[in-house]
Amino acid sequence: MKKILILGAGLSASSLIRYLLKHAEENSWQLTIVDKDITLIKEKINGSSFAKAISFNALDPNERRPEISRSDLVISMLPARFHVDVAADCIDLKTNLITPSYVSEEMKCLDAKAKKAGILILNEIGVDPGIDHMSAMKIIDAIKNKGGVLTCFNSFCGGLLEPSSENNPWKYKFTWNPRNVVLAGKGGAAMFIDHGEYKYIPYNKLFSRLDHISIDGYGDFEGYPNRDSLSYRSLYGLDDIATIYRGTLRRPGFCYGWDVFVELGMTDDSYAMEKSNELTPRSFLNAFLPYDASIPVEEKFKRFLREDRAYLYDQFEWLGVFEKDASFGELNASPAMMLQKLLVNKMSLAKDDRDMLVMYHEFEYTLDGIEKRITSSMINIGEDQVYTAMSNTVGLPIAMAAKLILTNKTHLIGVHIPVKPEIYEPLLDELEENGIAFTETEVLI
Amino acid sequence: MKKILILGAGLSASSLIRYLLKHAEENSWQLTIVDKDITLIKEKINGSSFAKAISFNALDPNERRPEISRSDLVISMLPARFHVDVAADCIDLKTNLITPSYVSEEMKCLDAKAKKAGILILNEIGVDPGIDHMSAMKIIDAIKNKGGVLTCFNSFCGGLLEPSSENNPWKYKFTWNPRNVVLAGKGGAAMFIDHGEYKYIPYNKLFSRLDHISIDGYGDFEGYPNRDSLSYRSLYGLDDIATIYRGTLRRPGFCYGWDVFVELGMTDDSYAMEKSNELTPRSFLNAFLPYDASIPVEEKFKRFLREDRAYLYDQFEWLGVFEKDASFGELNASPAMMLQKLLVNKMSLAKDDRDMLVMYHEFEYTLDGIEKRITSSMINIGEDQVYTAMSNTVGLPIAMAAKLILTNKTHLIGVHIPVKPEIYEPLLDELEENGIAFTETEVLI
Repeated sequence: MKKILILGAGLSASSLIRYLLKHAEENSWQLTIVDKDITLIKEKINGSSFAKAISFNALDPNERRPEISRSDLVISMLPARFHVDVAADCIDLKTNLITPSYVSEEMKCLDAKAKKAGILILNEIGVDPGIDHMSAMKIIDAIKNKGGVLTCFNSFCGGLLEPSSENNPWKYKFTWNPRNVVLAGKGGAAMFIDHGEYKYIPYNKLFSRLDHISIDGYGDFEGYPNRDSLSYRSLYGLDDIATIYRGTLRRPGFCYGWDVFVELGMTDDSYAMEKSNELTPRSFLNAFLPYDASIPVEEKFKRFLREDRAYLYDQFEWLGVFEKDASFGELNASPAMMLQKLLVNKMSLAKDDRDMLVMYHEFEYTLDGIEKRITSSMINIGEDQVYTAMSNTVGLPIAMAAKLILTNKTHLIGVHIPVKPEIYEPLLDELEENGIAFTETEVLI
Repeated sequence: MKKILILGAGLSASSLIRYLLKHAEENSWQLTIVDKDITLIKEKINGSSFAKAISFNALDPNERRPEISRSDLVISMLPARFHVDVAADCIDLKTNLITPSYVSEEMKCLDAKAKKAGILILNEIGVDPGIDHMSAMKIIDAIKNKGGVLTCFNSFCGGLLEPSSENNPWKYKFTWNPRNVVLAGKGGAAMFIDHGEYKYIPYNKLFSRLDHISIDGYGDFEGYPNRDSLSYRSLYGLDDIATIYRGTLRRPGFCYGWDVFVELGMTDDSYAMEKSNELTPRSFLNAFLPYDASIPVEEKFKRFLREDRAYLYDQFEWLGVFEKDASFGELNASPAMMLQKLLVNKMSLAKDDRDMLVMYHEFEYTLDGIEKRITSSMINIGEDQVYTAMSNTVGLPIAMAAKLILTNKTHLIGVHIPVKPEIYEPLLDELEENGIAFTETEVLI
């Protein structure tokens, strides 16, 4: 018996647990799943004899360590900031660890210790980061292996809606944590390199400096820049590449609309608004517009939009920004908290809605004096509101990496992300078998 | 003999020291002036027998405390963050203290201790804060004393140029710390109340939501909102006022131009630009504009400006933003540091330039059913580049407050700002005798 310990059984653990249970018997796996909320786990294991639900506080080392010591592999689905503590325990107790989160500086520093303990700590193995690393590296390595020189790498990912669920003017609903969506991009200026020129885009321009892409059969998308594209040069071995850019995908209309929230100041999370509990959508909007008793809020907002963005008006009206009948009732709320409340009211998934995960890469390279462009795209549509595209694309690569480790198909040790062929080749193959497949095209430029 | 200890002899101490020395003999004052840079002090005391220059590190309590214990009054011209430590020493050694800086939360907490020690800690007694408090409170108290009810208070202040020195398209040169000018407004959203409606303006709109004022004989000004207008309600006893707004004055054209820097992202101080030492003004600008090899930077910048702001182009050209001959040579510089370097090159005071301090208040009130508006304005022009308007308006109220304390004309104890008649009445009178005078007008609305 191989024992797998899963810490945290939230939304993104559904597909992970389903896969592991499906393959438990053939591999002699026994799952132990820990969460504060035991009903959450019981829903997900659905009576399986290969899984045991335990309720304790996974953040407490005294509760966590005995379980880790009994396990062959730990999968931490805890919030990212707790991974380093879990990793330290895993090193101590010589147990392999998988996390879907970005490698922090502290995590990076554990590399030597993990190697000494002979364990693998595999991070960034969900969707973004995760599938993006693997699918990009497969193509980058292939180009390099045949002697090509990469000149351009653009990469986009977005958590969106299956087209028939795009039934609002924003063509967007929350398919993951709304707070993260509201605060997206606030970490600092976006940085990338374009034809050898370093470019910087401040937050106040992020949602108006867009890229436009199309995917056959799925139409048009817009991408706004992610904060940090530059670090991907060293991660992907592209130190001398002239263009590298990573962005987030939305449907056309969303970003220019969101830019208006930014410009109004509604995404600010740094202060509480005065008497915020008394604010209605209308007075919330009015708080960011100049005082003018001679015209209604609608007219003030039109002036704020300017003529070149007048077409966005309907999107805002649909959101109910002019409604004045009910107040939000939120005490000491920041503008971002109020905005989140407004949006969640209108942009939550309905019962039959399904989500859609879109990933798109573009590579340009030179080989024997010939310039070519490869595009590679993946679309994944959720099954329902439990096995969403988000849950599948985050959970399946984690589960498959777990299988790889437990079946001794990888002998990597230390702190890693999935950029090596011994990880990405088997995982991409198996993801494809599970419906997470990339479509490639290559053209001469 | 009364002993006055002055900590710090920087630019804004010039007029302060001159005044105290001028009145030293008649009042039997002996000044001890401390700075790391003794030549700085010697220039300012110019051989006077009433002052002694000492060079030590005023930030070191072991060096500072013996001098405080020998003094009747301490004037701290140190950077604001050191005032609380000095205040703690003054309480301990029962010595009065004056600072020109804003009362911090920590300073506020020293009130009871200062009262117990029987000393006065008088803060915010420069120009803004300082003269603004005194001149506003004089009118507010007068309105209240005759039974009027204030409905509106708008107040502006700006460190600008004497009109004949306004010889550049921005009508601006640095008359104080350029870094503070470059980072102005970055602390958070501006908040005020307008006709009973709370209003919030994010940094990215700060320099485009302007007020326009005119002062007889001095022409037009524009005001952008200061961060915190709301706290002045309690400071000035105006808790129920429907409109309160404080702003910073510039000449027309400056703010809309500055807004372009903000929009480009050039005032960001949170990251170092890649290879910043190699950047020229042109490549610095280009780093914030999209890549487009088909058009020159000038054209890209024109597109960024949009047609409605095309008139600003010449201001930027004058600044040399398109120059490409020399690089800045600044290593690991943030955008804000690069911008500062660019601006200081072009916007520094020339030898004959003089600065100008402008303050403008507007009050509306109702008395016996009649609505009236009072405006009160003060213009002060610098004498030269040592006795600037900034140095006079900061230093003279401090010096006059020192005289008030040392001649026992005030018996206030505890932590205070100059909002009480026993401080502002004698000081405003003496400021007027020294050329810092307000002109009032009153009209029916």
